[in-house]
Amino acid sequence: MSSKFKNAKRIEGLDSNVWIEFTKLAADPSVVNLGQGLPDISPPTYVKEELSKIAAIDSLNQYTRGFGHPSLVKALSCLYGKFYQKQINPDKEILVTVGAYGSLFNAIQGLIDEGDEVIVIVPFYDCYESMVRMAGATPVFIPLRSKPVHGKKWSSSDWTLDPQELASKFNSRTKAIILNTPHNPMGKVYTKEELQVIADLCIKHDTLCISDEVYEWLVYTGNKHLKIATFPGMWERTITIGSAGKTFSVTGWKLGWSIGPNHLIKHLQTVQQNTVYTCATPLQEALAQAFWIDIKRMDDPQCYFNSLPKELEVKRDRMVHLLESVGLKPIVPDGGYFIIADVSLLDADLSDMKNNDEPFDYKFVKWMTKNKKLSAIPVSAFCNADTKLQFEKFVRFCFIKKDSTLDAAEEIIKAWTGQKSG
Amino acid sequence: MSSKFKNAKRIEGLDSNVWIEFTKLAADPSVVNLGQGLPDISPPTYVKEELSKIAAIDSLNQYTRGFGHPSLVKALSCLYGKFYQKQINPDKEILVTVGAYGSLFNAIQGLIDEGDEVIVIVPFYDCYESMVRMAGATPVFIPLRSKPVHGKKWSSSDWTLDPQELASKFNSRTKAIILNTPHNPMGKVYTKEELQVIADLCIKHDTLCISDEVYEWLVYTGNKHLKIATFPGMWERTITIGSAGKTFSVTGWKLGWSIGPNHLIKHLQTVQQNTVYTCATPLQEALAQAFWIDIKRMDDPQCYFNSLPKELEVKRDRMVHLLESVGLKPIVPDGGYFIIADVSLLDADLSDMKNNDEPFDYKFVKWMTKNKKLSAIPVSAFCNADTKLQFEKFVRFCFIKKDSTLDAAEEIIKAWTGQKSG
Ligand SMILES: Cc1ncc(COP(=O)(O)O)c(C=O)c1O
Ligand SMILES: Cc1ncc(COP(=O)(O)O)c(C=O)c1O
Repeated sequence: MSSKFKNAKRIEGLDSNVWIEFTKLAADPSVVNLGQGLPDISPPTYVKEELSKIAAIDSLNQYTRGFGHPSLVKALSCLYGKFYQKQINPDKEILVTVGAYGSLFNAIQGLIDEGDEVIVIVPFYDCYESMVRMAGATPVFIPLRSKPVHGKKWSSSDWTLDPQELASKFNSRTKAIILNTPHNPMGKVYTKEELQVIADLCIKHDTLCISDEVYEWLVYTGNKHLKIATFPGMWERTITIGSAGKTFSVTGWKLGWSIGPNHLIKHLQTVQQNTVYTCATPLQEALAQAFWIDIKRMDDPQCYFNSLPKELEVKRDRMVHLLESVGLKPIVPDGGYFIIADVSLLDADLSDMKNNDEPFDYKFVKWMTKNKKLSAIPVSAFCNADTKLQFEKFVRFCFIKKDSTLDAAEEIIKAWTGQKSG
Repeated sequence: MSSKFKNAKRIEGLDSNVWIEFTKLAADPSVVNLGQGLPDISPPTYVKEELSKIAAIDSLNQYTRGFGHPSLVKALSCLYGKFYQKQINPDKEILVTVGAYGSLFNAIQGLIDEGDEVIVIVPFYDCYESMVRMAGATPVFIPLRSKPVHGKKWSSSDWTLDPQELASKFNSRTKAIILNTPHNPMGKVYTKEELQVIADLCIKHDTLCISDEVYEWLVYTGNKHLKIATFPGMWERTITIGSAGKTFSVTGWKLGWSIGPNHLIKHLQTVQQNTVYTCATPLQEALAQAFWIDIKRMDDPQCYFNSLPKELEVKRDRMVHLLESVGLKPIVPDGGYFIIADVSLLDADLSDMKNNDEPFDYKFVKWMTKNKKLSAIPVSAFCNADTKLQFEKFVRFCFIKKDSTLDAAEEIIKAWTGQKSG
């Protein structure tokens, strides 16, 4: 075959992808899918209705402003102005992107050079590593480590960074750290003290922070989401990323945003205008309208930013209970909509699984999907090669699911472990 | 300011963009906008209705397959199978992207390495140059040149590539040529003979072809759109790019597609999964439904692929007539929805325009937008630095506009030149 048919070097080795592999597996309609972070609950009615209405308006089916539809950046500026306690310039300090994914890509391509180092906390949303590599930079990994818990419930807050170890990762080549709070897949919500350690290091070493906060609204009782960009000295060096898909349970809309100082956002804008140029207009307008509805009732329990976490907390507790009832020890998440558990105690005969070089959790999930008709995501997919072994006994379940889906999962797990379902 | 705030080198010098600049200018509602390629005619009713309906379906608001929503790639495979006279594998030979723009980006990032050369025909859709540069490759330019026309109407078909000159641009570093037919901004529809010259050179020099065919349906009487991928030996080395925005007059949907052999498409897929991962589900499903409607009536004059070019041909003729009536000599386009004309004969006092280093057409369009409330796009925006002078007397007008918009433009142009409107 012609050598001209070869891939460009920048994507060498970046062709495998956990979502593509495991989503294909879970596509079988008889499988109960607790895999990909894909809500099967209904998105809010007004969100869908706005899109239906807007689809009928001619001009809203045409190109809009490349860096963000005017009404959407205005809504975002109003919403986030409250949290940053400062005015956010809708045109210069906000960029609307193709999902949070697009924001991550724009930030990394716009700011990270070949040869730079980027600190990535393990486990991590899998694209962080491949995006950093695609930019020709080197990811420098540091794992979250758990304290011993001796019989107590295991919580995502037991998993922390060692400050000394973290400090050792920074050097003059460090261009950025990627932070994710609330955390996927752990559900960890970083505390003020933890964020302060990171902020201090960023400032000391003059490092950027890319803060992926797509689950910002999804924090459970006793926890509070904090934005590292609001810490002293951090605004000027932080890109904060959000997602419409996660905010309004419409992952299929693929709209996200980056917020930060113009001296950084402008570089992301340059990437945008050379990659996709602009995002879908009808979805942006519908999203803007949805935001206005909830911006006007932020203190109301009906506001989706308040009602969704309440709804999910019940589902989280149900999952904790279910996993504990069959003898597992889940890590109780403080935020997000995933729960992880060590599944090596569950009875599974993986002896005739092919691909023996795959981590345990990959084989386990494939086996479970095929034999138990229940899907999940292996946690080692969120790890670099060196740390996979540390996490390969963990599997991630997604709980933003209808009760009937959780019922079906419960039945499968209980039947498997010989418990009565009830 | 911290050096860490600087842009990555790959985007150095790529921050200016003609669309952003001129779209801002034309945003004034009192301006008659014949600038950006933005239809102000209504998109087909069924296209809008499909989106309205689909917005109400929960599951179609969630993530779908990353490389293209199953029903959409199926529709595309069925549609294009007819034109390629071969089966097109929906999963392996098609990739759905964020507009044709996204397809161009994925193709260039997936296939073009630092140091490669890419042949770009001038004038060119402006992102070709910046995308090639962002990949660290070198664009090698070759201009279309006009035959003398001596009093005859000037046609886009008078603009051709010199085969010898084209041959001289190919060498062992040439990784690809970017072709655009029907052509923006010229309206040129490449003939069989012209495409054969390009195909022969691609095969001789083992070069890829990225064929941007977003205006594929928009060809006028006496012309036929041909796909270079169907020429012998070309399928294996061609990525063909289409656009929902241009096909169904919904530029705001930002969906596009790449079609080609799996050994090339798979590299574009790798880029996709590391940039945006997946495209918007409701828009993809609505697009699939719209395609099925028109696939079933391809021979019917009502089919949008037949009716839109008929509708536009009338508008083209009207624009030709208007421009001629005020003494200009437009280049009559054989396809697409733009018309360009040398406007240097028009009376315009640019003496107090700032930015004296700008090309004539930039100043002219800014002056016209401000003083005549009519906007257009300067053709030198479609040129590299060295060829701007060759095209700076030309301005591009978009004619996919309601009659009332064209009436308003006519009034402005006639009043300006002292003709009676009517
Ligand atoms: C931590 C994190 N970041 C980013 C994304 C991507 O979000 P989007 O769908 O808006 O691109 C996800 C999706 O699961 C995620 O979990
Ligand atoms: C030649 C050409 N290619 C690509 C595009 C981009 O198309 P899309 O809006 O689908 O990204 C355009 C838009 O004007 C174009 O004229």
